[in-house]
Amino acid sequence: MSPEQVVNRFIEHIEALDVDAAVALAAADISYENVPIDPIVGRVAFEQTLRGFLGPAREVEWRVSRQWVVDRVVINERLDRFRIGDGWLELPVAGFFEVDDDGLIAVWRDYFDLATYTTRLGELTRR
Amino acid sequence: MSPEQVVNRFIEHIEALDVDAAVALAAADISYENVPIDPIVGRVAFEQTLRGFLGPAREVEWRVSRQWVVDRVVINERLDRFRIGDGWLELPVAGFFEVDDDGLIAVWRDYFDLATYTTRLGELTRR
Repeated sequence: MSPEQVVNRFIEHIEALDVDAAVALAAADISYENVPIDPIVGRVAFEQTLRGFLGPAREVEWRVSRQWVVDRVVINERLDRFRIGDGWLELPVAGFFEVDDDGLIAVWRDYFDLATYTTRLGELTRR
Repeated sequence: MSPEQVVNRFIEHIEALDVDAAVALAAADISYENVPIDPIVGRVAFEQTLRGFLGPAREVEWRVSRQWVVDRVVINERLDRFRIGDGWLELPVAGFFEVDDDGLIAVWRDYFDLATYTTRLGELTRR
């Protein structure tokens, strides 16, 4: 698979809430970086984070509005949508993925506004 | 100038706190988008915003860690640094610039964590 195919496949797995398949596309020493939070390093910690992150979502849709590929780097602008409780959480994201020679994601760095996520998550999970 | 030269020059003007020169590189109908805040549209509003934004800074340094160019789109990852009062505000940013056929910036979209900016700004401007 090309770097772009790897990233597209990865996003499909996320949307299918198939964490096992998504994690299988991550390098053993993946660095998963939600700027400005400290990087999550390694596939085990990555899987744990991904499960926690996707846990509350009953449905996930990531709308990629634009995507570029330069060598082994895939860059996209996305609207990440999560159906949580009775509503949708929508998060605009800029993502940078580095795919290694084995076709695995070695770096995944997302830029977004954290409060957009946490505020809406609070609204949707409030009892 | 190439799209990348335009963006590099623009950043140099920002670092020199030369708003006039920076604005001269903006298209008349520029869309300046600090995701997820509503876009600022048009050169007049853009200039006003830029002056307000740079106003408190005594010194500005934008460290571009990586930059890609695809056709007329320039994408970068940056650490935008502003010296305000006695300290530095540091903001990690993902930037997307679209340069039009006249060599002017038509779209500038930045993704970042707003609270990283506002919290540190509050600390540095507190009396």
